[in-house]
Formats: sequence, structure tokens, C-alpha cells
Amino acid sequence: MPSASASRKSQEKPREIMDAAEDYAKERYGVSSMIQSQDKPDRVLVRVSDLTVHKADEVVWVRARVHTSRAKGKQCFLVLRQQQFNVQALVAVGDHASKQMVKFAANINKESIVDVEGVVRKVNQKIGSCTQQDVELHVQKIYVISLAEPRLPLQLDDAVRPEVEGEEEGRATVNQDTRLDNRVIDLRTSTSQAVFRLQSGICHLFRETLINKGFVEIQTPKIISAASEGGANVFTVSYFKNNAYLAQSPQLYKQMCICADFEKVFCIGPVFRAEDSNTHRHLTEFVGLDIEMAFNYHYHEVVEEIADTLVQIFKGLQKRFQTEIQTVNKQFPCEPFKFLEPTLRLEYCEALAMLREAGIEMGDEEDLSTPNEKLLGRLVKEKYDTDFYILDKYPLAVRPFYTMPDPRNPKQSNSYDMFMRGEEILSGAQRIHDPQLLTERALHHGIDLEKIKAYIDSFRFGAPPHAGGGIGLERVTMLFLGLHNVRQTSMFPRDPKRLTP
Amino acid sequence: MPSASASRKSQEKPREIMDAAEDYAKERYGVSSMIQSQDKPDRVLVRVSDLTVHKADEVVWVRARVHTSRAKGKQCFLVLRQQQFNVQALVAVGDHASKQMVKFAANINKESIVDVEGVVRKVNQKIGSCTQQDVELHVQKIYVISLAEPRLPLQLDDAVRPEVEGEEEGRATVNQDTRLDNRVIDLRTSTSQAVFRLQSGICHLFRETLINKGFVEIQTPKIISAASEGGANVFTVSYFKNNAYLAQSPQLYKQMCICADFEKVFCIGPVFRAEDSNTHRHLTEFVGLDIEMAFNYHYHEVVEEIADTLVQIFKGLQKRFQTEIQTVNKQFPCEPFKFLEPTLRLEYCEALAMLREAGIEMGDEEDLSTPNEKLLGRLVKEKYDTDFYILDKYPLAVRPFYTMPDPRNPKQSNSYDMFMRGEEILSGAQRIHDPQLLTERALHHGIDLEKIKAYIDSFRFGAPPHAGGGIGLERVTMLFLGLHNVRQTSMFPRDPKRLTP
Repeated sequence: MPSASASRKSQEKPREIMDAAEDYAKERYGVSSMIQSQDKPDRVLVRVSDLTVHKADEVVWVRARVHTSRAKGKQCFLVLRQQQFNVQALVAVGDHASKQMVKFAANINKESIVDVEGVVRKVNQKIGSCTQQDVELHVQKIYVISLAEPRLPLQLDDAVRPEVEGEEEGRATVNQDTRLDNRVIDLRTSTSQAVFRLQSGICHLFRETLINKGFVEIQTPKIISAASEGGANVFTVSYFKNNAYLAQSPQLYKQMCICADFEKVFCIGPVFRAEDSNTHRHLTEFVGLDIEMAFNYHYHEVVEEIADTLVQIFKGLQKRFQTEIQTVNKQFPCEPFKFLEPTLRLEYCEALAMLREAGIEMGDEEDLSTPNEKLLGRLVKEKYDTDFYILDKYPLAVRPFYTMPDPRNPKQSNSYDMFMRGEEILSGAQRIHDPQLLTERALHHGIDLEKIKAYIDSFRFGAPPHAGGGIGLERVTMLFLGLHNVRQTSMFPRDPKRLTP
Repeated sequence: MPSASASRKSQEKPREIMDAAEDYAKERYGVSSMIQSQDKPDRVLVRVSDLTVHKADEVVWVRARVHTSRAKGKQCFLVLRQQQFNVQALVAVGDHASKQMVKFAANINKESIVDVEGVVRKVNQKIGSCTQQDVELHVQKIYVISLAEPRLPLQLDDAVRPEVEGEEEGRATVNQDTRLDNRVIDLRTSTSQAVFRLQSGICHLFRETLINKGFVEIQTPKIISAASEGGANVFTVSYFKNNAYLAQSPQLYKQMCICADFEKVFCIGPVFRAEDSNTHRHLTEFVGLDIEMAFNYHYHEVVEEIADTLVQIFKGLQKRFQTEIQTVNKQFPCEPFKFLEPTLRLEYCEALAMLREAGIEMGDEEDLSTPNEKLLGRLVKEKYDTDFYILDKYPLAVRPFYTMPDPRNPKQSNSYDMFMRGEEILSGAQRIHDPQLLTERALHHGIDLEKIKAYIDSFRFGAPPHAGGGIGLERVTMLFLGLHNVRQTSMFPRDPKRLTP
């Protein structure tokens, strides 16, 4: 029986209500039969966000979740939620609603989805607890479209409560594992909605910028025949009667596309790291935003393109996603993200000097530890007032075999990382495009040449000089928003201990 | 020593040339030292596609590949290629070039990358073999930037030659395995460049259309804890001390996003099928363009959105990628892709009637075989003049357990496929959003409920009715262009027998 037909008999009403005295509103509420596409009614559903004084006194249909309900004598107040928007709805005994209908409405489990017909009424006093503050909905009909179970594993109001100290300390919040175990509910919060809409925006801005710059999007395989960088931290896949591996990065394929004359390529896709790291910023599967580009004479041509792409992302987010940023800030307060144009580029030796001045002891060819990265981020912020910068010319010793050595200083390399709020979000380099030098460097790193033969052979038929880098999407989202765990910015995070949901 | 400095001593010149008599042009040619970003010269490199009569008599620098070379007395004609564009270049003994320089130019291995300085000269007779037909380049300097090995595993001219019968039959073409084994070279052909630029365009148009429709892009995990659909055709991954699996589709995650109120979501990402199928249209890893959407009352709301998205892609391709389409057609002639607006939607029973009328014997609940799909495509084309249509209302028996049964006919389901040129490119359905019915259907299919617990639990806290589908990117590219093997439209295809490069 069509749920859409307002004249249909309501089914499955709780027995106690059915048994009660004659109910003059009995056609006006109930649990609908499952929507199986029985009909195509021409009913228009209005968005909750469109419920404003402009619609005052109109009769509208709304589909939304029951966020909260509160019965009070002959009335029941519901807060109806649709994504990040909500509106107050009133079911009151009168011409349209019987006391049975009010009771029915009051007993609908939170998070159930309902279709409501109501009159939009202007309110005299703003409703501070709702996004639609100037109107409420006077309910004439209410049907449950999808009933939620009575006990929720987490409360949405708890899930958006800021962690505060002092007076309000001790009010319920939701720990991360509970959130992740019940991700379908946790993702409904205004904070989660904002985080992942903004993340969608990052991908969009990344591609929009690169396509405008003449880049071509490529798709690279994730199942590969050999572990490219020596075999550490790689997941093994059973591939019919053999073994294969999950790609730790699309880099070799991006480079092949450069050797195949695509000149400027990008891709967005999963990257796999079988690393037993249980930190706030490591995942075993994350999303890589990857760039590779042929250049004319200097890899800084590429560094500038990548940095500009990130700057365009930051600007686009601040322009198009201000609502989302502010929504997240309500729960996780944070300074706005600052960046310079053009982007600050420091050489590794300059960073070393800054750290040493701050009392850190480090060798010239030593890599940055995580605490030193963070300290450096603070020092750079103090000195240059930017949350985003490039660190160029890393020691050759700490970079992969395919990194181009600096021709002016054999201990340095043409490689770079980029940082947001003191954490690395991109690693990149000029790659060696000469098969002979590549072979020498692979041998120097103790890599089995047989395993990278196809890679080296890619450069034997003419290869332009090129550079690139890979950006971690979840890290960019986390650091732009000033969040503290990459699991907050991965919808379904994977780490050594978590494979579900 | 900087390759960029035109005054530097050329290095590594073949001994016989170095030993020869005084060479007045010796600074004007040679093999450059490897570009290691030694300098940032302000030399501008002009694109080959910009070499037109508008630049006549200008001195320009060009970086390109040596496509062919042909020495002829005191002259050497080179064809210089940059992506799909090429131009004729002439090195002739005279003020700028010595006979040693001409000999050097003539001996540069094909596919090597060179930097050339030359004067653009208008030609009297069009050069039919080049894209830049009205000019040639009179070379003043030529330096090899990256030297190709002398023996190429395949010839680019062979690789773009159409397979023809009759008079020209027997001229060399390149077989598919040779192409794929040497993909870096095969991807340089004008055909490959066009195919993959158009494919990049498909992704761009898909996202552009959906973002305009209010969809949110999501990222879904590829490593999953349980094989969702009974465990067949799934790749196993070693995950630390346990096993995990590669996702056969992002569907369950898309659905969770719908249950999490994102309403309209899409994703583009790899999809894995451990299927030992060695056909023209199966890959073990392909790219899925996935859509999922909550609807109000009828799943046709979603079908219309998906069909319109595909139509927008077709229109965008025909508008923005006409050059690429024509380039591919030169090698693989094909009728332009035809489609209707709105898209033709046939019910499965109508298709059965058409097939039966054509002499095919099929049961009401039997799935379409590949030959019957193709035949149906021809019948539909004859009758409706469209290469794209929707087949709706598949028999419930041939669809997965989560498919919503048709409330009006228990043997049918609210599911659909979409076809291009008679081959399936999308499969989709209204999904069951009710945990009780979902459980029943899973049991009916003999699925272990324990393995899909998290999936079913996603629907316990209020779930809107929703539908969606998954599109195979490589198939869309193949069928739009009228190609005949999905390996032509996957840059680095994976099948049971191929894991490299």
C-alpha cells in the first residue's frame, strides 16, 4: 500500500493506541509501509533549510529525522533534522491532531525518518536551539518512513559537544572508538557533515585547479606485481595462483605517464601502507592526491605548480566552505589557516639552523623527527606568520633511491616536503630520469634490480626531466581544520587495529 | 654543466665526429648533460602546436621527440613530435650547420628528446605528413636532452596503423601484448593520447555533472574485513596477522553514507574482481564511477539522475573532445555514438519479447547472455535509433540479495542495467533499506548473516529509501569510442594473466 497516499489506512500502530477510543485523526499518522517505489506521487518535499518566514502560513511536506522529542501535556515538540539543518515542529491536540496522535508523535524513536505535513508558522521568539530560528512547523500529518531502533549507541548531541575543561567538564562526549564503531550515526552530526563536505571540496578544488593548468587525470593500478621500494610495509594479495602487492603509491605509474608524453598528470586514489604505526596521523589505507609533471630546466617549476595548487585549495575552501569551517570550529576551536603568496620555501639547511638556534641537536644528514617537525612549524609560524611552507633540498641520504641528487652538493637532493601546521602533508622530488644513474642509485640502496626492471626500462626510450609529489587527503583535511586525528577525516579509517565498518 | 647554456662545450659527441676536421658548428649541437636542475634559464620553449604561420621567421626553441629522421645529401629532415602534434625540421649544411652537425642530427635515435633552436619558415607546399602543415623549422642548434635506445620494441607508425583488408593488408601493425608490454611507448601514439585524454574527460564530466546536482564526493575503503557477497571472486590480502579482502564495489559504503544523511554521493575508485575471465571486457581491477542517492518515493528518481549524468557525459565528450574522437576514428573507424533525451527505458519483459520475436528462446527469469545483450542492442538500435538505453525491472532471481523486490510482481525487482552499443556499462537497483527484509533476503541467498552484520546494522537507525549504481569507466570509454577491448582503455590493465607493467 503506497506510503505516499495520505488517505491510506495507517498500519502497524501500537496496539494500545489502536485499542483506544475512536480516534478522529487516525488517518493522519502512523508507520508507513516500506517505500518500495509503489507509486510516483507528485508531492513536493520542502528542504528544512528552506523553512523560513518566506514560507509563513504555507502548508508543506518535509522529510526529516526526529532529532529530539519532548511531550508536554497536550503538545509534543519535535526537532526535525535534515543534514545540518533543523526546525522545531509542534503536534498539539486540536482540529488536526488527536491526543492519540500526539502520543504517537512523542513515542517515535529518535533518528527515525518521518514525512510531516505542517503549516509553517512565524514564531515571536527566536528558537535558539534550531538552525531555522524564525519559524516552526505546526504538524497536521506525521508518518514514520523508517523507524530507528529505540536504543542509540551514541547520542548526536554528545557527539558534537566540545571537550571543555572547568565548569562544564564532565558532560558526556563520545570517544573515538564508539564513534568509529557506529560511524553511520557519527557521520550524521553537523561536525561530520561539515568535515566530509569540505573534504569533497578539497578533491574538487585540487582537480579544478589542475585541469585549468592543463593536467590530465590518470588511473593507476593498485595491484602490482612487485613491491617497488624494497618490499617493506607492503600488503600481499593472493592473485590467482601467485602473489601480488598493493601499491604504496602511484608514483611509478605517474612517471610512466610522463615518459609516455602526458606531460602533466594527476590522480586521486587509495594508497596502502602495511605499517604497524598507531599514531594520530598514520593509516594503513589513505587517499593520495598525486601530481607528476615534466619540467623544462628546473624542478622548482613543478614545486611552484604544486604549491600554487595547494594555495588555490586553501583559498577555495575559505571562500566556498566558510559555513563548514565554522561548524567544525564550534566543536573544535582553531585559528584560521594562514598561508603566504607565493608560498614560503625554506632550504633544509635553513631549517636546521632554526632548530639548532632553538636548542635542538641534529646532524646535517639527519631526517626531521615528528617533534622537530612540529617545533619547526611553530618557529616558522612565529617568524613568517604562515601555516604552510615548503622545505626544500633534503639530505640525499634520507630520501628514496629514485630521488635526483643535487648537482651542486652531493649530500643534498632535489627533493622537498610541504607542511601544514607543522605536519608533513606532501613529499616529493625531482625523479631520476636517466636509467644509468637510476640503476646506480638503486644498487647503492641495495634494491634488487630484477624487481624494478620494468620501472628502469621505462626511461630507456627518451624521458623528460620531471618531478612530482603525493599529498595525503586526510592529513590536509585534518590540518586545515585544526583537528588532531586523521581518523576524524577518514570516513571509514583503516589502521593496524581497525578494519570495520 | 648546465644543458641550458648554449655556449657550453658539447660533451659525449661520437668520436668519429670529434676526430674530424675543424667543425665550425661544434657548439651548436651535441648531447646535453643530464638535466639536474642546475640552472633556471629564462629560455621559452614554444609548443609544437603553436608553430604556425603566425610565427613565421621567428627564432624559437622547441623541446620534442625525434619521431623520424631522414638524411638526404647535405640535409637531414626530422619530424619532431610533441604529444599528438608534429612538425618538420630541416638541418642543412650552411651558416648554422656543418656537415658534422647534419650527420649528428641524422644519427639521433628515434624517440630521443631534443631541444632545438630554429627559424620558423612558411612552406610553399603543405606538409601532409605533419600536423603543422604550413611551416617547417630551420634548425640552428640541436641538443639531445634524453637519448632513446637505438632499438625500439615497437614503431609508433605501426601502432597507429588501422587494421585494413585488401590492398594494404599485410602492413605491420602491433599486437596487443607487445603494446601492453611496452605501454610507455604505446601510450605515446596519437590514438592512445586521445583515448586517455577523453577518459580523463569522462571522469571530469561525471563529477562536474554530479557536483552541479548537489552530490558529495566520498572516499571508501578498499581493504575490507569480510567478503560481502558470499566470498566468491574476492581477492584476499594479508593484513598483519589476519586476512582481509579487496572491495568488489564501494556499494556498502555508499549506502552507509546514505544512512548517514549525505543524501547524494558519488565516488571514483578501483574495484577488484578475482574472476578468472579472459574476455574483451573483463578486468580484475577496473575503475568504478559509483553513484548512490536517497529518493523520495520512487527509484526512477535515481534512474533519471544517473541516465542524465551519462547523457551529460556523452554531450560533453562530443562537444569538448571532438578532436580526440576523430583521432581515434582514424585508426578505429566507428559510427558516432547516438543517444536520446530523455533516455529510452525498456522493461525487461519488453526486451524478452523483442528477443523472442527475433527467434531467441529465453525463460522469464533468465539473465541475458552476452550474445543476447548484443543482439538486443542491435534490435534497440534498429527500432529506436539509440546506442544508449536503460533496461529496467530485472527478474529478482538474477540480482543480488540486497535488491528491492518489485511490490507489484514478486518475480521482478526494482533493478536496472544501462547499455552502450549493446554492452552493459552500469548495474544498479533500489536497495533494501529495511533490516528485516534485508535479513530475509540474505538468508534466502544463503549468505552468512554474521559476515554482513555491520552492513545490516547500518539500516537499524533510520534509513531513507535509496538506489544507485556503478559504472565501469573503461567500458564507457571503449564503447563510446567504438573500440573492441577494454585493455585499450585501461592504461595499465590487470587480468588473470597480466600484472605488469
